[in-house]
Amino acid sequence: MSIHLPADRPDTGEDLDTAFRFLVSASAADSPVTPLAEFHRWFAERTERMSQVEVDRIPFADMAGWRFQFDTGNLVHESGRFFTIEGLRVRTDRSWVSTWTQPIIVQPEVGILGILVKEFDGVLHCLVQAKVEPGNVNLVEVSPTVQATRSNYTRVHNGAEVPYLDLFRNRRGARVLVDVLQSEQGSWFLHKRNRNMVLEVFEDVPHHEDFQWLTLGQIRQLLRLPHVINMDTRTVLSCVPTTFSGRAPEPTGSGFTADVRRSMSVRARPLHSMREVLSWLTDVRTRRELVQQRVPLHCAAESGWLRTKDEIAHPDGKFFTVVAVDVRSAGREIASWSQPLVAPNESGLLAFLAKRINGVLHVLVQARVDAGSLNVAEMAPTVHCQPGNYADVPEEHRPRYLDEVLAAPASRIRYDAMQSEEGGRFYHAKNRYLVIDAPDGFPDAAPPDYLWMTLNQLSSLLLHSNYLNVELRSLLACIQAV
Amino acid sequence: MSIHLPADRPDTGEDLDTAFRFLVSASAADSPVTPLAEFHRWFAERTERMSQVEVDRIPFADMAGWRFQFDTGNLVHESGRFFTIEGLRVRTDRSWVSTWTQPIIVQPEVGILGILVKEFDGVLHCLVQAKVEPGNVNLVEVSPTVQATRSNYTRVHNGAEVPYLDLFRNRRGARVLVDVLQSEQGSWFLHKRNRNMVLEVFEDVPHHEDFQWLTLGQIRQLLRLPHVINMDTRTVLSCVPTTFSGRAPEPTGSGFTADVRRSMSVRARPLHSMREVLSWLTDVRTRRELVQQRVPLHCAAESGWLRTKDEIAHPDGKFFTVVAVDVRSAGREIASWSQPLVAPNESGLLAFLAKRINGVLHVLVQARVDAGSLNVAEMAPTVHCQPGNYADVPEEHRPRYLDEVLAAPASRIRYDAMQSEEGGRFYHAKNRYLVIDAPDGFPDAAPPDYLWMTLNQLSSLLLHSNYLNVELRSLLACIQAV
Repeated sequence: MSIHLPADRPDTGEDLDTAFRFLVSASAADSPVTPLAEFHRWFAERTERMSQVEVDRIPFADMAGWRFQFDTGNLVHESGRFFTIEGLRVRTDRSWVSTWTQPIIVQPEVGILGILVKEFDGVLHCLVQAKVEPGNVNLVEVSPTVQATRSNYTRVHNGAEVPYLDLFRNRRGARVLVDVLQSEQGSWFLHKRNRNMVLEVFEDVPHHEDFQWLTLGQIRQLLRLPHVINMDTRTVLSCVPTTFSGRAPEPTGSGFTADVRRSMSVRARPLHSMREVLSWLTDVRTRRELVQQRVPLHCAAESGWLRTKDEIAHPDGKFFTVVAVDVRSAGREIASWSQPLVAPNESGLLAFLAKRINGVLHVLVQARVDAGSLNVAEMAPTVHCQPGNYADVPEEHRPRYLDEVLAAPASRIRYDAMQSEEGGRFYHAKNRYLVIDAPDGFPDAAPPDYLWMTLNQLSSLLLHSNYLNVELRSLLACIQAV
Repeated sequence: MSIHLPADRPDTGEDLDTAFRFLVSASAADSPVTPLAEFHRWFAERTERMSQVEVDRIPFADMAGWRFQFDTGNLVHESGRFFTIEGLRVRTDRSWVSTWTQPIIVQPEVGILGILVKEFDGVLHCLVQAKVEPGNVNLVEVSPTVQATRSNYTRVHNGAEVPYLDLFRNRRGARVLVDVLQSEQGSWFLHKRNRNMVLEVFEDVPHHEDFQWLTLGQIRQLLRLPHVINMDTRTVLSCVPTTFSGRAPEPTGSGFTADVRRSMSVRARPLHSMREVLSWLTDVRTRRELVQQRVPLHCAAESGWLRTKDEIAHPDGKFFTVVAVDVRSAGREIASWSQPLVAPNESGLLAFLAKRINGVLHVLVQARVDAGSLNVAEMAPTVHCQPGNYADVPEEHRPRYLDEVLAAPASRIRYDAMQSEEGGRFYHAKNRYLVIDAPDGFPDAAPPDYLWMTLNQLSSLLLHSNYLNVELRSLLACIQAV
């Protein structure tokens, strides 16, 4: 028997082995290393302790180190580091409001989101961290092993040590299982990407009290809860291959969960070949228009944005508001600082419509153009919006499928949880993540900017950058938690 | 027998079939459809006829429709279309000159470079065009079937009909074989990409006198000649899969040509797995710094750029010069117009060092950061530079491997031809394309920003955008012509 391996995965043997090991970890719903009951006790204790931290909104003028540049109005840190809030002038071919100017977070550096994994009794466990971020709804969430900026990574300056970061810098004696740049929120960031990494270690690593080892199965259970698993963890986990193939038995059984598992299999026959999928996205990226011009923040006034002493807001109360916060801690564990945050004006909706096509579960994906996209369009959930922004918008310009999703009966809802976006940049940014089983007779045909794909097709594209936007990656992590 | 197809090519059967058919076309060194002798006669005749076109350098002020904006100094067309010449301020971590400001071509639209293919007597033939571009060294070169801007493509305005464009717009009754956005020169363009397409048609298409059908084997023979096959054709052809696998017998024989063919096989064992290759590039993209700021063109004066009545030039006589040309035709076939062009100040060098590792030919690839890169770094040839820019540069900052390549004896040179870059934007932009067989004992170990890869690995990455820069894609087309 000769197997002709396609060229872009000559190491398929090793990759399939990795995928198999993650499947084993995903099927471990609990673990003696950190039983879930013990995790909850520990997480409550860490949250209690870290909640001595106080986060208060303050006037911009009271932020230490941050100021508005006189000539541009840009909000910058005096060190020139971290990030800036600038203006972005956008021209698109959208039918409803096609040109505008808005504030945008500019952070050209690539940071690292890294998860360490290690086998305990033959099962891969992920090292996660209880971490405070000022914008988190509950202050503390479960984070990857490492969230580090490029400055930490390249040791440009000597900040506080980031635990485990050296392992990601040196990678000595370790194996890289995931290593890919992925984008972050295109509505709020200009061209932002982070390096998503999973690193396997074979030796013991030091224990820190803010960290615990969990199986993928345990993390997926926690993903059913609101505001526990943070966005950074979700995006890194979405890149972890859990493809059914070769060594893993094909999932059996009926019901939505079994359908999700089978849609992750390499044997799942997709409606569209991968060449068709890529050609579809290339066509959207060529057809759609996105001209971005970085401008001084004061140009955002062109679209009505108004700066007061403690916020930069849109006059309609839509979109988001730029605010300032002060972070103070009673204890000595966490330093005090102040910083700007982007506060969405209401929660968003990120939803999949899912449907069996030729017996295989497919989800409806849209190619979405966002103000800050690096690459014109990325794939996004079926519905991806802040519904409130469309309250006064004519019927024909409402986001497609929004009404179907909102009207879905409980009997068709397969996943429904509120989750937070990154609390280091966003203030109480909440999204409702939904997976809806489409009703019988829902059409196979999709409008031009939409395409039905299997979960395995989505997963396989995560070897590469800028195909799936962060909201789609999060939702892909969530759907596997059903 | 069950074959477990990796997930990112579920349509591998069809893709392997396409690759096999292109291999057949590549092995057809001549064809009765357009015998090479007939091609040369035709090409000489078209060149003769089109050479009535006169291209003259003129002062900027004499260009119809183009002007310098008063406030920015940007060079723009009064319609707001085509492209602009603006300023780009760059901060990098290069050891030699790490920050600078330069003129840059800004063209945010995505154009199409498309080749139609059709079977004649069971062999795929490509429809190529004899086309005048004002910056071409010999004025006329062999172009893809279609070179169209987004404005042509979306029919924003009604320009002259572009032959065959409707086939690429509608794709009805045709099959898309290649469809991917690829970058263009990062030293001269800001974030520029074009859509590289190959479309198979099954019906007859109208004949135009400027077009001919050639096999891939015929085009590869023409690639051995200087300045015949233009850059756009080279980049589209580089994306054509000609992987040996399945149906195609493994190439036999000894010698460099056989080694090249075997390196294109899916069975070629690479030194580094694809996961390692992608992780290496991700690491470079995270580690290296590239901060780009679009600024008014007059800011280029910060780095000494000087504008006179007929050029914008660097005071050291290095890099490139922005010039204006007038294009006039005695006949009525070609309209008259004027436009700016970027004229490199001397020819460049694009070279592969090639080496057998475990019996498989590998080429040494660098991850290169260019001023206008969309994605920090892309893969580039072993040597990629204009040697003259380094004449006064200290030894330790000279481009790595430049001296080895220049000193290579004729007995180790496997390909050596001058080729032009895109004559619609560049004036007499010539590069020497070289493939050097590395001497015995040349080390397997590579410096951090370099990696040995097989040709099949490079080829397989061309399913995706922004991995291989245009110079590497051109060289990949050339090495297959040996």
